[in-house]
Amino acid sequence: MTLISTLSDKEEVTGYFLVKELDVKQTNSTPPKDYWDLVLADSSGQITAKYWDLKPAEKESLQSLQVAKVHGIVQLYRDRLQMKVIRIRPTGPEDDVRLTDYIRAAPVASADLVAAIHSKVDSITDTDIRNIAAFCVLKAGDRLEHYPAAKSHHHAYYAGLAYHTVRMLEIGEFLCLQRPFLNRDALIAGIILHDLAKPEEMNAQLGIVSEYSDRGRLIGHLALISGWIVEAALKLDIPTDSPKVTVLQHLVLSHHNLGEWGSPVQPQLAEAVALHYIDSLDAKLQMVEDALGSTAEQETWTPMIRGLENKAVYRTRF
Amino acid sequence: MTLISTLSDKEEVTGYFLVKELDVKQTNSTPPKDYWDLVLADSSGQITAKYWDLKPAEKESLQSLQVAKVHGIVQLYRDRLQMKVIRIRPTGPEDDVRLTDYIRAAPVASADLVAAIHSKVDSITDTDIRNIAAFCVLKAGDRLEHYPAAKSHHHAYYAGLAYHTVRMLEIGEFLCLQRPFLNRDALIAGIILHDLAKPEEMNAQLGIVSEYSDRGRLIGHLALISGWIVEAALKLDIPTDSPKVTVLQHLVLSHHNLGEWGSPVQPQLAEAVALHYIDSLDAKLQMVEDALGSTAEQETWTPMIRGLENKAVYRTRF
Amino acid sequence: MTLISTLSDKEEVTGYFLVKELDVKQTNSTPPKDYWDLVLADSSGQITAKYWDLKPAEKESLQSLQVAKVHGIVQLYRDRLQMKVIRIRPTGPEDDVRLTDYIRAAPVASADLVAAIHSKVDSITDTDIRNIAAFCVLKAGDRLEHYPAAKSHHHAYYAGLAYHTVRMLEIGEFLCLQRPFLNRDALIAGIILHDLAKPEEMNAQLGIVSEYSDRGRLIGHLALISGWIVEAALKLDIPTDSPKVTVLQHLVLSHHNLGEWGSPVQPQLAEAVALHYIDSLDAKLQMVEDALGSTAEQETWTPMIRGLENKAVYRTRF
Amino acid sequence: MTLISTLSDKEEVTGYFLVKELDVKQTNSTPPKDYWDLVLADSSGQITAKYWDLKPAEKESLQSLQVAKVHGIVQLYRDRLQMKVIRIRPTGPEDDVRLTDYIRAAPVASADLVAAIHSKVDSITDTDIRNIAAFCVLKAGDRLEHYPAAKSHHHAYYAGLAYHTVRMLEIGEFLCLQRPFLNRDALIAGIILHDLAKPEEMNAQLGIVSEYSDRGRLIGHLALISGWIVEAALKLDIPTDSPKVTVLQHLVLSHHNLGEWGSPVQPQLAEAVALHYIDSLDAKLQMVEDALGSTAEQETWTPMIRGLENKAVYRTRF
Amino acid sequence: MTLISTLSDKEEVTGYFLVKELDVKQTNSTPPKDYWDLVLADSSGQITAKYWDLKPAEKESLQSLQVAKVHGIVQLYRDRLQMKVIRIRPTGPEDDVRLTDYIRAAPVASADLVAAIHSKVDSITDTDIRNIAAFCVLKAGDRLEHYPAAKSHHHAYYAGLAYHTVRMLEIGEFLCLQRPFLNRDALIAGIILHDLAKPEEMNAQLGIVSEYSDRGRLIGHLALISGWIVEAALKLDIPTDSPKVTVLQHLVLSHHNLGEWGSPVQPQLAEAVALHYIDSLDAKLQMVEDALGSTAEQETWTPMIRGLENKAVYRTRF
Amino acid sequence: MTLISTLSDKEEVTGYFLVKELDVKQTNSTPPKDYWDLVLADSSGQITAKYWDLKPAEKESLQSLQVAKVHGIVQLYRDRLQMKVIRIRPTGPEDDVRLTDYIRAAPVASADLVAAIHSKVDSITDTDIRNIAAFCVLKAGDRLEHYPAAKSHHHAYYAGLAYHTVRMLEIGEFLCLQRPFLNRDALIAGIILHDLAKPEEMNAQLGIVSEYSDRGRLIGHLALISGWIVEAALKLDIPTDSPKVTVLQHLVLSHHNLGEWGSPVQPQLAEAVALHYIDSLDAKLQMVEDALGSTAEQETWTPMIRGLENKAVYRTRF
Repeated sequence: MTLISTLSDKEEVTGYFLVKELDVKQTNSTPPKDYWDLVLADSSGQITAKYWDLKPAEKESLQSLQVAKVHGIVQLYRDRLQMKVIRIRPTGPEDDVRLTDYIRAAPVASADLVAAIHSKVDSITDTDIRNIAAFCVLKAGDRLEHYPAAKSHHHAYYAGLAYHTVRMLEIGEFLCLQRPFLNRDALIAGIILHDLAKPEEMNAQLGIVSEYSDRGRLIGHLALISGWIVEAALKLDIPTDSPKVTVLQHLVLSHHNLGEWGSPVQPQLAEAVALHYIDSLDAKLQMVEDALGSTAEQETWTPMIRGLENKAVYRTRF
Repeated sequence: MTLISTLSDKEEVTGYFLVKELDVKQTNSTPPKDYWDLVLADSSGQITAKYWDLKPAEKESLQSLQVAKVHGIVQLYRDRLQMKVIRIRPTGPEDDVRLTDYIRAAPVASADLVAAIHSKVDSITDTDIRNIAAFCVLKAGDRLEHYPAAKSHHHAYYAGLAYHTVRMLEIGEFLCLQRPFLNRDALIAGIILHDLAKPEEMNAQLGIVSEYSDRGRLIGHLALISGWIVEAALKLDIPTDSPKVTVLQHLVLSHHNLGEWGSPVQPQLAEAVALHYIDSLDAKLQMVEDALGSTAEQETWTPMIRGLENKAVYRTRF
Repeated sequence: MTLISTLSDKEEVTGYFLVKELDVKQTNSTPPKDYWDLVLADSSGQITAKYWDLKPAEKESLQSLQVAKVHGIVQLYRDRLQMKVIRIRPTGPEDDVRLTDYIRAAPVASADLVAAIHSKVDSITDTDIRNIAAFCVLKAGDRLEHYPAAKSHHHAYYAGLAYHTVRMLEIGEFLCLQRPFLNRDALIAGIILHDLAKPEEMNAQLGIVSEYSDRGRLIGHLALISGWIVEAALKLDIPTDSPKVTVLQHLVLSHHNLGEWGSPVQPQLAEAVALHYIDSLDAKLQMVEDALGSTAEQETWTPMIRGLENKAVYRTRF
Repeated sequence: MTLISTLSDKEEVTGYFLVKELDVKQTNSTPPKDYWDLVLADSSGQITAKYWDLKPAEKESLQSLQVAKVHGIVQLYRDRLQMKVIRIRPTGPEDDVRLTDYIRAAPVASADLVAAIHSKVDSITDTDIRNIAAFCVLKAGDRLEHYPAAKSHHHAYYAGLAYHTVRMLEIGEFLCLQRPFLNRDALIAGIILHDLAKPEEMNAQLGIVSEYSDRGRLIGHLALISGWIVEAALKLDIPTDSPKVTVLQHLVLSHHNLGEWGSPVQPQLAEAVALHYIDSLDAKLQMVEDALGSTAEQETWTPMIRGLENKAVYRTRF
Repeated sequence: MTLISTLSDKEEVTGYFLVKELDVKQTNSTPPKDYWDLVLADSSGQITAKYWDLKPAEKESLQSLQVAKVHGIVQLYRDRLQMKVIRIRPTGPEDDVRLTDYIRAAPVASADLVAAIHSKVDSITDTDIRNIAAFCVLKAGDRLEHYPAAKSHHHAYYAGLAYHTVRMLEIGEFLCLQRPFLNRDALIAGIILHDLAKPEEMNAQLGIVSEYSDRGRLIGHLALISGWIVEAALKLDIPTDSPKVTVLQHLVLSHHNLGEWGSPVQPQLAEAVALHYIDSLDAKLQMVEDALGSTAEQETWTPMIRGLENKAVYRTRF
Repeated sequence: MTLISTLSDKEEVTGYFLVKELDVKQTNSTPPKDYWDLVLADSSGQITAKYWDLKPAEKESLQSLQVAKVHGIVQLYRDRLQMKVIRIRPTGPEDDVRLTDYIRAAPVASADLVAAIHSKVDSITDTDIRNIAAFCVLKAGDRLEHYPAAKSHHHAYYAGLAYHTVRMLEIGEFLCLQRPFLNRDALIAGIILHDLAKPEEMNAQLGIVSEYSDRGRLIGHLALISGWIVEAALKLDIPTDSPKVTVLQHLVLSHHNLGEWGSPVQPQLAEAVALHYIDSLDAKLQMVEDALGSTAEQETWTPMIRGLENKAVYRTRF
């Protein structure tokens, strides 16, 4: 089976791909004609595609977030590859394809990631902090299994949120060993909670964010999770103004570090400082790793990466 | 009775003043001697004062936030007036002085301000919004009667918070009449709530903030009041993710307008835009009015005002 | 008659519209063919339109800022509606259409707005300030009747400048009542003058700015109106360095508040502070009201609004 | 005669110095005693001085901006030299001292500088531009002979404004030769006018700015000189909206380059670009030259220079 | 011979032009067809061009950076002129054309510029500084003869780097005469060295930068030339930590003035301050001169200039 | 023996302390009297001290960076403890004190830190990278044993530079294990080199920076170490423009991430991104740990920490 990341100019291809985006558009010929503007994806990357001469009868035959069988030709257009689709149809049981094989996903199985997070919750020694963390993980529900960590910034794929959390927990554990003055309970809980309201901030399926929710746009995931902590405290009969609740709220509210990055307060706690830099370190390195991974091996430079001061990254070859 | 704002160089004065600050310090003579470094205040302003040659026996005789009877001489020191205290003693019942006569306070009686706020809460037509606002006003409790609106920035006096709120409500009502497209319930509730968690953010007595609370420093009054709204909704059985709760949280979280001014989200609602600019208008104009009022009439320029891009204000004389 | 704001995809329409913009362009077919790229407008909004297969004989038959009779079909193109024009011709007397019915305009009649401004000028009690204000209003001339307040930022329609001024005057009067320490003469004059040189800064017809003037680009409306005040003082034999002239110049020069927003000096006068925030309040709320008004009722979010930190606005439905 | 720049610790000195600043202050001993806090100056620099034990009878015997005969001892205090004054008296005719010998002044005679400026005005070939420039130079009057270019930033000494102007004219002439596309009339007039309203912005005597004027604080020298140009045009019957008047206004308004540096418009004219960079070049290099000149020869680094990103300057020794 | 700067709409032209860029692209017709997307240039400017209906056999017949004989028709497309190419072929010996006649180049012969630079190197009196400057000029090699000073910002043409250097040297010499306190050796060497590593930072041919080099992107020309100075010192047996080497490194590292403009240190040397402002003055004025020169004479305004705060420049006509 | 961190108001103390700073100053009494202004230090912290009534004969008896025997009384002055010294004398062999017992130092022995760094150099597998790293470590020489990592920002104590480097190496090793796509050679070398030119940038003894060197101020440690790498390559016959040299230069030049923080280029390499965030993480957490450690246990908040957005840090007590 041909992976998108290996396609090259003029290659003719037949295979299964996820229809990640699907829009009916019109050419600017006279009279304009309908066509499909598609984004096809598999686990290795994505490619824009055009299906010209779309017939009225075909319009309803395909939907986005389906796996389709596609026959097409790859072409270089404005320096980027795109596919001219010749034939495309939705798959059925007879194709024997599994949706999750065709989406970009974290390199670790979702169930393992979620189990790791649960296990870290259980390892928190302070009862109140453990219970608040558990309450919030429960509130996130099964969305934690598949949500990405962001719309496009970083970890923008199936289970990206859980993967980001688990990798940060690994770094956090290392730092707690290296620096015993850190309060492990606070740091572990802070890492688990910091992005946990993202499922309330965004609407996502298959690791793909379609849009921000109204509540996400109007409140943001920092103040949302701070509200979850208040709710947890009330439900668990922990005073909402106790130091533990205060510290957890501070951890999540300050984790973007600066006001212009969305934090209403700045880190004023050892664990809050650690949380912010662990978050940056994991997010930035993942952006770099993913950008290098989705850039053809022979290319020395990746495309520009937004979250990296809009810089491209150089591939070391020694 | 002599007001502080009318004192002049070399004037000898006997009168009652609030001891706003009181510190035992030591001269840098050899050997160092103890003295009191004081800030004396009345309703017209404040003046620094020194009581030299403090005897060990006197040290415990006076406390801050008391009214004292003072005999002293005014002197010009480094371009500012200060008082050399000759005698000072705490007042007792025989002096027949009321503490509240000696502090800076809003120009409207505190009880009237609080009543006006309650009345505006009652005027909200939507039951959920009215109940949430009422819950939060109740939670602020009697601190609303005397809290200042800030430590020093603006309305930093007895009942300053209530006064700021009431004046903003007047502007808000005017705007709702001028622009019927505004949702009056949301705007009135937003104005009442926007600074209502300041009593949780700061510790104050007599309109004077002694310090920020731990919870105030770590969370800030924006996220605090957002948490109160969550609490209100839970207690009142209003879904925490309902549009009304979302809108109220958005109003308070966005009222500082920009991330660098402490808002994790920016105004995205007509009433949130109105709230921010009504808040600025009232706070800035009050700073100017108070600065002109506490600058001697013959002075053309006030001192620099921090909240006004650090500019002084010119007194128009025509 | 069909309003542009009510058009929908695939709708066939015949009606009168203002030709707001008109350009001859060429398709990128081989060989390229001429077509008209149009912007059609009425009082409810505007729509881009294409008239394909433009014949050489037709090229001179139509001009911009005319009302035309149009027959066309609405189409969705790149997520936005546009009109494919089938027939278009200029209107004549027989059509009995009035140009001003087809443009976006302030919701209050232009003559009433201008009369209100004149009346406020007359109400200024100080002779010098009143005469300077009157001189400048006279210099703006009849352009005050129809100029917009900006090219696109806010109040970008017929009589937008006068409307913005009148609404600000209403807020100003309210504040003078609420806060008697404000100098009403200075504030009323400042509001009237603050944008009054916009007609020298821009070239506009029918409320539509075609371009900035050379003088507008090189000097800007703040320094332009400051120069008008100097001119008024010289013509009226008021010393150019008198406090009243100084205060009026300061009001107009500082009304953008910060250097990076175009003010060479920052507000240092109670009335200058009031002027800036009244201006912001009116401009921002009008942007929001206009954005909500021109967004289809069923849409929850407006498009992004440039003057509002590039944020969209949420429509409250309760 | 001993120059201030050559004084050293513990040196006893008798000589004539300008009393640049003179304040009666009080020690913080008990009881406080009066003393004079002085700044003494000569052409080489300045030194703070204290005259302890000031007797009541002496208080009126001396004024600032007089030359005094002084006997004192130099002492190192907090890493800086200051003078302990033993005797001080104002000079009279018998001392045969000239005030101008004791102040910091431009290295070229004031009369020569002013003559050079007049000569450059005369060399402008365009009648309107020449007449406007001449009008403004006349309006500045004899203040041009002695005003500094700034309070402390650069050229803060007698005739500093004229010196700054003349040096910029030299660079301007060079650039006009090197780059014939530049309009010499506009550039020469722009240089002459750019800071010419500083005498209206500040109050100065002997090259020392005591304070900014009300008009200077409220309008600033950029908008002030722009107003002078309007006035000149009206008096000379040149249309105020003619391109020449527009260009001259643009040159002065844009010469600070950016909004945050006080320019309401940015340079949009070859000569405006040249003017800004010539101004920067001359001002910055003069700051460096003056800082090196007033730093003891054996010091490798000058103090920090505010106008130079707050950096100190290194003295090259090869 | 017709110059590109004089072409007008609908003009038919036959002439020689440099093929500055050449790409095979495809129309978005169905099926897509190949065409050449070209940029044609001569000494007067450049124009985009299309050669439709490119036949497979023609594809290899032409390369970029060749002079071609072209027959085409000029057309207005989206407000800009472009050329529809009818016939195009590479030139051969029989055409008798010289490549250098068809490129944009500095207005002074490259050989003269390089000779002027060598002569300035020789005029440096200090042996070490002269030798280091000579070493670096030698290392730049013959690239100094033809490199532009930037990709597009300023002096982006044949020998632009040498031209920029020579003009700055002229200003530098003038300033050394005007201000004898400047160290001429340091300033002359600083000017020669400041952009001398641009040939290592970019890949260019015929004055046209195709791309930045890997080393250029990863290190930048400031740190590159600083490294050349270290290399020169080592090769010439001058201690790398001597004041002269330090000063030369400081000059090149600080010449962008601020950290956000790429300088790791800020100017802290009289000559470094001079270098930065001479560089700005020459670069900005050249941008303006070139923008005016390449804008049609009848246009009052140039296009926006990136390096000039994105402002257009006004053409004075008096 | 009494540690400075345990001293309290009015305590009388006799002990050995390091004389960290020593200045002769004068009281502002009349006449002024000489006194010593001292900073005394031990491994637990430091305290300012005054020795009044310094006799001329005593002035030369003590020098800074000596251990002295001190008898004094602790006093609270302006809210901070200081010591009034009664007797002080330098120590001699008879006191049997070791200097290194009295200074603040990294918590790991200097020799162990240096050995760890050498061992990491040896573990680099690429010969060129290993040799360049070894060359630079050798060039830093024995200063690596005792230099602090900064003047006051972070790790400002004996062997702070080596300690910072070793802790970063630990985090770096962890990340290389967690993320195999990282090039360990580049990251390890980058960590070792990134601050290695600090000994050339500053002058320090006993972990205390007295001042920046001329070369440090004029070039900065980023461009300095970049120059060392060039020197290493030349001495080791590795081409200075090879990818390995380029990558090492890029790592050190970009490690401050942004231009305004001193990096002339931004990280464009996976390992450069990692290096910057590891550096921040270690430096910030060490600041927090050290601030908490030097704040009395009963205090909830540390003083404000400059490198932490000027925020204080809260001490968690659960």
